[in-house]
Amino acid sequence: MIRTVEFSKTDITGGFWKQKQDLVRKTSIKAVYDRFKETGRFDAVKCDWKEGMPLKPHFFWDSDIAKWMEGVAYLTEKKREPRLEKLVDETVDLIEKNQGADGYFNIYFTVVAPESRFKNRDWHELYCAGHLMEAAVAYYKATGKRKFLDIMCKYADYIEKRFKIDKDTEFVTPGHEEIELALVRLYEETGEKRYLELSEFFINSRGKQDEMLDGRINNRYNQSHLPVREQTTAEGHAVRAVYLYCGMADIAYHTGDAELKKACETIFNNIVEKRMYITGGIGSSSCGEAFTVDNDLSNLLAYTETCAALGLALFANRMLRFEADSKYSDTVERVIYNGFMSSLSLDGKSFFYENPLEVIPYLHTRDKSNHAGMIHWPPMQRSEVFGCSCCPPNITRFIPSIANMLYSESENTIYVHQFMQSRTEIERSGKTIVIEQKTRYPENGKVEIKVSGGDTRLAVRIPGWCDSYEGETVKGYAYFDVKEGQTLAFDFNMRVKLIEARPEVIFDCGRFAVMRGPIVYCMEAVDNGDILRDIRLSARSRFKYGKHQELGVPKLTVKAYRRQRDDGGPMYYERKEQLIETEATLIPYYAFANRGTTEMQVWHFVK
Amino acid sequence: MIRTVEFSKTDITGGFWKQKQDLVRKTSIKAVYDRFKETGRFDAVKCDWKEGMPLKPHFFWDSDIAKWMEGVAYLTEKKREPRLEKLVDETVDLIEKNQGADGYFNIYFTVVAPESRFKNRDWHELYCAGHLMEAAVAYYKATGKRKFLDIMCKYADYIEKRFKIDKDTEFVTPGHEEIELALVRLYEETGEKRYLELSEFFINSRGKQDEMLDGRINNRYNQSHLPVREQTTAEGHAVRAVYLYCGMADIAYHTGDAELKKACETIFNNIVEKRMYITGGIGSSSCGEAFTVDNDLSNLLAYTETCAALGLALFANRMLRFEADSKYSDTVERVIYNGFMSSLSLDGKSFFYENPLEVIPYLHTRDKSNHAGMIHWPPMQRSEVFGCSCCPPNITRFIPSIANMLYSESENTIYVHQFMQSRTEIERSGKTIVIEQKTRYPENGKVEIKVSGGDTRLAVRIPGWCDSYEGETVKGYAYFDVKEGQTLAFDFNMRVKLIEARPEVIFDCGRFAVMRGPIVYCMEAVDNGDILRDIRLSARSRFKYGKHQELGVPKLTVKAYRRQRDDGGPMYYERKEQLIETEATLIPYYAFANRGTTEMQVWHFVK
Repeated sequence: MIRTVEFSKTDITGGFWKQKQDLVRKTSIKAVYDRFKETGRFDAVKCDWKEGMPLKPHFFWDSDIAKWMEGVAYLTEKKREPRLEKLVDETVDLIEKNQGADGYFNIYFTVVAPESRFKNRDWHELYCAGHLMEAAVAYYKATGKRKFLDIMCKYADYIEKRFKIDKDTEFVTPGHEEIELALVRLYEETGEKRYLELSEFFINSRGKQDEMLDGRINNRYNQSHLPVREQTTAEGHAVRAVYLYCGMADIAYHTGDAELKKACETIFNNIVEKRMYITGGIGSSSCGEAFTVDNDLSNLLAYTETCAALGLALFANRMLRFEADSKYSDTVERVIYNGFMSSLSLDGKSFFYENPLEVIPYLHTRDKSNHAGMIHWPPMQRSEVFGCSCCPPNITRFIPSIANMLYSESENTIYVHQFMQSRTEIERSGKTIVIEQKTRYPENGKVEIKVSGGDTRLAVRIPGWCDSYEGETVKGYAYFDVKEGQTLAFDFNMRVKLIEARPEVIFDCGRFAVMRGPIVYCMEAVDNGDILRDIRLSARSRFKYGKHQELGVPKLTVKAYRRQRDDGGPMYYERKEQLIETEATLIPYYAFANRGTTEMQVWHFVK
Repeated sequence: MIRTVEFSKTDITGGFWKQKQDLVRKTSIKAVYDRFKETGRFDAVKCDWKEGMPLKPHFFWDSDIAKWMEGVAYLTEKKREPRLEKLVDETVDLIEKNQGADGYFNIYFTVVAPESRFKNRDWHELYCAGHLMEAAVAYYKATGKRKFLDIMCKYADYIEKRFKIDKDTEFVTPGHEEIELALVRLYEETGEKRYLELSEFFINSRGKQDEMLDGRINNRYNQSHLPVREQTTAEGHAVRAVYLYCGMADIAYHTGDAELKKACETIFNNIVEKRMYITGGIGSSSCGEAFTVDNDLSNLLAYTETCAALGLALFANRMLRFEADSKYSDTVERVIYNGFMSSLSLDGKSFFYENPLEVIPYLHTRDKSNHAGMIHWPPMQRSEVFGCSCCPPNITRFIPSIANMLYSESENTIYVHQFMQSRTEIERSGKTIVIEQKTRYPENGKVEIKVSGGDTRLAVRIPGWCDSYEGETVKGYAYFDVKEGQTLAFDFNMRVKLIEARPEVIFDCGRFAVMRGPIVYCMEAVDNGDILRDIRLSARSRFKYGKHQELGVPKLTVKAYRRQRDDGGPMYYERKEQLIETEATLIPYYAFANRGTTEMQVWHFVK
């Protein structure tokens, strides 16, 4: 059995992720708090809102503050932050104060709609409970303070009573999944098997009766169109979907349910083979924030919610507990460096909810009438907070715990899934194995992995984009018997590649993406002039790797061609192909939109 | 002063337009009638509908039957159709019977909402009146029967009284333009100057006060955002827009209003230089069926309503009365052979409302939830009738009168704008000049124009796509002094061209259209296999011109390349560019979607 090595065992000591973790610690966590404070989310926990007062609580606010607290917990795990910890403690005290004698806690259903408790499947009640449970577990692990955990165990007990024992609720399974995976975390921490069984109950009940409660919502939207074991494609609201798949993977992992594991594998394959952008973004339609059909991956209209990308990484990382297969860890890598990382501004203060792969500003002004059929365009600039602000606190809990993606271990092997400058201590049969990674990854592909404290078998992922590795691999992993004190050295060749998508992905036909190692590069008009679609990258020229001085991120430059402009000419004319030689500048996709609104594209024409 | 030579002077004697006119006479006119009869439109003229009865009249039904009657009039002009004429006569009798003593006639505002007469600007009341006026004029000219014309004059008088004299209506100008151009036709036929002045009143009043009556509708949507003389771009609902521009051109023509003429020219230029598809389609967004912003010409989401295309041809043809400039007549040609002609199925029985330039069937199934943000995709198959069925009877009135586009005349010159196998008699200072065109155009570019009955100066449009003509031209026209009996012979070289769009039209960047003469060609998957975007036409090879046996239309074939498929491969992979040589088959765009739902594209990749 393979176990994830928890992030708490790892210190990220430099490089890309250290910089991002410092940014979250110094800036983002406070930025999210300030916006949530301003918008009433924290004060709402007092549960003293009354009709007519401003800042009416929304039914998902519990989850916003829960995810923020979870982020604080992860930061605290590595270095205590007394001011933040105090804010969490105060919030927990308020939760305790306002928890019902029966164990129930939910802001909205206490102050706004108390008569509707457990009556509306799509009002995120169990979703909020799930996020509070995750936060409670994380906070207990980080601080040893049990209060929050006890509160949430009591609430979980109450949920079990109402949904599983008394069955007197007006719906059976949550309209927005999350509690499934959260209950498993509660089980993992407390050892209380009833929580695992309650999660299993929710998962097994899903899609077994008509759970439609609202004409707006269809069964596919919240993955209730089929019993979960019969689902073979990723459907509906993408965040709901990946949270469910995480829960399914958790249950399959803890119960050994082979059928459920098989369903997870089938759905995972459907995602990464048919429904995922090159950035790891998923959920291509704003209509229901949803998965659509195979190969429908519009770059301009990509919805690709941050939470969905992050959820895909969580799902993929969970699948690595069944077997070390680089299709999972390659996906984690694709997400964390691209479609997830784009969500955070370089200054750490603002956030993308949607992460499109092409931005053409003038199109956003096309619909001037408010008739039906107006197209939803992804915002072109990050925001500090959203009405539905699920993404920002998801970012601030994900980055501090990124090292969860780094290693897993089985009885005789430690698996190295990702590469980060870091030091990790793993307790194994009484010994403390220390693994140190020395690397500037993803700046270059050189990685030294030093093992001390004992011998071990190491399985190292050879990245899917790397074709320079010549050793033997099994499902993308190279296996080594490593002696105490030994260092494995790798040099994954990060030559720049032009990438094409399968023909079926019609939006990418005739166009090519640029990748260097795991990083997807994009062009912005601010570097290259407007009308990026008119630039043709030279397919025969070498890309030069350097540093973008203004942004402080890497850049690529390459010879390119641009059509000659003829401003007075006709709209349509016989093919001239008058190309002017120029140089194109590309930056990592994750760094786009940090210099104002400007055209951007990931898929380029080449010549 | 240049006058249009009315279609009634011309017999189209063979070729493309004879075939289309025969199709309308034999099939389409009856098909439209049958569907309108079934859906209650004709019976509604009895004005005996009551609440609770089926087939509730809609507020634009008057216009549907009016346009159908106008089509019958045009067919009748060339050859009487007793059965159809009887149907018109019966309908006119019902209109007469149900016309108010005051002159008012409108089905909806008689039987459904009599209390709302002239109260709701956007309910198409004056639009319906306008179409009835056009039909009445046409029917009088074709048959000499005055009854319908008298009815409509009486109605026009009443409208004048209410809107212009008493000013007791709840809006000033119509929310859907049409009556402006119709009143001018009424004036041209009756010589009653008040009708011209009423039209001028509507045009001059437009955009001068806040005419918003409904939060759904903004001023730009119905061209009321500015006084018409200050408008410089084509805005809002495209059909409304071009009907207004026709009316503006009519008023400028009859009154000599230079400022209004200038506004028409400016708007026309904006359309053809910035807001028109290569097919002549206009109005790129389904949101408000509207013009959007310059260069926003999505092929997949093109709305490009049939009525708007046809209206652009009417507008362009009107502009030819100010001067012979081939930018107008080239636009007429672009529309009538492409974005208009696509609206009619080859069997004459079904119709496109929207005329997209690319169809990818799988995308139409993408949005499975009914949340906000669902994309409106153009239908992929023609329909026999629509809920809002404005397009079919517009087609059946436009094709029989297509020869209106053929000639115009000034005191000393006859202008040849289009090329059709035909015979035309033009009375000029006591003589009957007969012009016979002998041509298989647009099958090839050979045109013989024979003049008899007298000498005349001829100005012949040299098509904008033609670069083989070596004589002198002025604004695209070649001028000849032609003697009685003389024949001018032209051979416009129809070599196939690859066309590119200006860089700003980002949806066409890197892609090329194929034109032969005035005809835009497209590819369909039924001829070429799925994923047309993966085919690259050979830019260096010759196109072969032939006949598509199944469709009975021309076809082009050319060497092409297609990416090798690798069904088991990954979604994203390093550029292989493994191309397999193949042959691509193209058909005229107007013939697409006659063999079931299949992928289609106008803009192709080349190699």
